[in-house]
Amino acid sequence: MLDLIITNIGTLATPEGKGPKRGIEQGDVRTIPNAAVGIRDGIISYVGPMSDAPAARETLDAGGRLVTPGLVDSHTHLVFGGWRHHELDMKLKGVSYLDILKGGGGILSSVRSTRSASAEELTERAIGFTKEQLALGVTTSEAKSGYGLTSEDELKQLRVVRAVDAMQPVDLVPTFLGAHALPQTYKENRGEFIRIVCEEMLPAVAEEGLAEFCDIFCETGVFTPEETRTVLSAAKAQGFKLKAHTDEIDCLGGAQVAAELGAVSAEHLITSDAAAIAAMAEANVIGVLLPATSFYLDKPYAPARAMLDAGMALAVASDFNPGSSPSLNLQLAMTLACLKYRLTPEETLTAATLNAAAAIDRADVAGSVEVGKKADLVIWETDALSYLFYRFGSNLVHRVVKNGVVV
Amino acid sequence: MLDLIITNIGTLATPEGKGPKRGIEQGDVRTIPNAAVGIRDGIISYVGPMSDAPAARETLDAGGRLVTPGLVDSHTHLVFGGWRHHELDMKLKGVSYLDILKGGGGILSSVRSTRSASAEELTERAIGFTKEQLALGVTTSEAKSGYGLTSEDELKQLRVVRAVDAMQPVDLVPTFLGAHALPQTYKENRGEFIRIVCEEMLPAVAEEGLAEFCDIFCETGVFTPEETRTVLSAAKAQGFKLKAHTDEIDCLGGAQVAAELGAVSAEHLITSDAAAIAAMAEANVIGVLLPATSFYLDKPYAPARAMLDAGMALAVASDFNPGSSPSLNLQLAMTLACLKYRLTPEETLTAATLNAAAAIDRADVAGSVEVGKKADLVIWETDALSYLFYRFGSNLVHRVVKNGVVV
Repeated sequence: MLDLIITNIGTLATPEGKGPKRGIEQGDVRTIPNAAVGIRDGIISYVGPMSDAPAARETLDAGGRLVTPGLVDSHTHLVFGGWRHHELDMKLKGVSYLDILKGGGGILSSVRSTRSASAEELTERAIGFTKEQLALGVTTSEAKSGYGLTSEDELKQLRVVRAVDAMQPVDLVPTFLGAHALPQTYKENRGEFIRIVCEEMLPAVAEEGLAEFCDIFCETGVFTPEETRTVLSAAKAQGFKLKAHTDEIDCLGGAQVAAELGAVSAEHLITSDAAAIAAMAEANVIGVLLPATSFYLDKPYAPARAMLDAGMALAVASDFNPGSSPSLNLQLAMTLACLKYRLTPEETLTAATLNAAAAIDRADVAGSVEVGKKADLVIWETDALSYLFYRFGSNLVHRVVKNGVVV
Repeated sequence: MLDLIITNIGTLATPEGKGPKRGIEQGDVRTIPNAAVGIRDGIISYVGPMSDAPAARETLDAGGRLVTPGLVDSHTHLVFGGWRHHELDMKLKGVSYLDILKGGGGILSSVRSTRSASAEELTERAIGFTKEQLALGVTTSEAKSGYGLTSEDELKQLRVVRAVDAMQPVDLVPTFLGAHALPQTYKENRGEFIRIVCEEMLPAVAEEGLAEFCDIFCETGVFTPEETRTVLSAAKAQGFKLKAHTDEIDCLGGAQVAAELGAVSAEHLITSDAAAIAAMAEANVIGVLLPATSFYLDKPYAPARAMLDAGMALAVASDFNPGSSPSLNLQLAMTLACLKYRLTPEETLTAATLNAAAAIDRADVAGSVEVGKKADLVIWETDALSYLFYRFGSNLVHRVVKNGVVV
């Protein structure tokens, strides 16, 4: 006997598989009309026509609505102190980001706020964010550190991620991003900061088992491709899976370093050129695209169609953070992916479910509605997939099911 | 004794006056720290420091939050049947709007859906929309007809607006838009349709008192400036206040016609040139800008700063409709106004409150927090105005107060 059967699903739409969908296959979404999904012990145990559905102790009538996998947000900076809305005023008055930074604003302002916040304060805030994520349909989320920039403060952020993961339903996947920015104190001594990241922070994070991934911000004015290779190589040697923020402003070769070292994903990729795209496609690096950041900063949108044409797998994420993407609404990021990247509704769905799960190494348990995966589902206030990307600005969730529980 | 006192307002931010703010004055927003607002019989009776606040039967503690006037959405097509998400699929596949229209899609598809829906069905849907508006902070909204295009069907839409206005708290201001599109049956006989609008529809609408404003879509492929003059002149003679959709795709002179006839507002204005802007500024025509439409259709954004520089008053509205702006989220339109028009937070607030109220002739009773106006307020989940335009993608409303009632 099952625990729960969700019946009267007008359309079930889901990608399928335990790995990412690449290139033209990213649009291969299975749709089942008049479907049912059965759940036992928080795991999907039946997917198919309503007519063949097994019996269950409880029934949830989806009312003819669309059901998809729970959304997966594969790139967030979920734990931070403070906000930076005052920078919006400055930006609108024409103050450049560099001048904001010189005035003590920008990422270093978030570092100060995060350092001065207690773990309890950071935990309470992040729990609030996960509640909002869940209400918006997100059932699994990545969470990066990177506003500490000292061993102690990076560990504090990652311990908060662990605590928040245990305290609420959204599954969090932790990423260590100690090399998010160069602290001002190491301005004349970059090598020493890189050494601390590799020889102090990474071992400390590994020892407590606080992060699965190591990420770095490879960009003009931040870290070079060579520094990226150093940090990611050290991380790989210590058992971390790899990610890299790269090609956001300039195409420096960071994507090639990510490809060379077998990174699971590379993020932003606004300025990736043909060589960068070819390298990532060849090495099966998943492109994690962040359209809300392009939207908020008035930057170009990543060349998503060229990436799919080259055979890459693409994920779409919120990039939720207090500076460049203060939105954690993954539905809005999906609408942006459709409208601005010109992804089809099917490609977009895969980008925010299966491929996003693959980008954080969860495609074996999440990202699709298939027997054996976690029972993470969204029932939407529509019967049509394309409606999700059309009716923007409203939360279109009817119900979220997380680990088989209607939340 | 007052009915309600809202105390512990961290910051009260409101434009002031009974008419629109023009040009550089659009940014003149009054802010009162540690404020209170008193309410009697649904009307504001005290605005000032908390320390001087009079006694009231009930107290609402704003918890140090920001309070602004209730938002006013001055341009919506709130009553319609059907949705058009299937056109998104076509658009993404590269089908042009003209081909969609030839295939029976576009606005004429909404006309078919609206004609075939019963008044009861349309009422129920529109009530759902007003509920969502209210939850997003909108306390007054315009609502246009224009998906009927026959006397009977236009009257049906406007009767629905009247019914919905009576059945829920959001105040609706009705606009007759019979000249929204040329019905296919009049393709070879445009003059006859214009005659029907002027001599049959307008008198019927006037007789039932179903609309305050008359609007028309002046655009290449829709109605010419000369037809616009004919319809708006007839409307003016019959006692209607005037609006015009113009300069959305081409700058044809519609804005000048609106100015010449003393229209209260002109809408869209994406392609308005210096002559159009000068004419509107001179005639005190309020520019109702619709950034969500530019966003959704990938069109340019209206030249808002040039309009302010020329001394125009600007409103920002959602343009909620099933074709070109399926979003009724005025918070998102405000964020777009800030980010894409480069309006300051203060200019944006005025554009979605006082100037929006002026664009639908309600500046005497709504659009600002002042003694004597309706007690329509929003308490926001922040203490800073700029946060509203920064933290996009989330509904930032804490509480809405409509006619003095906490909803």
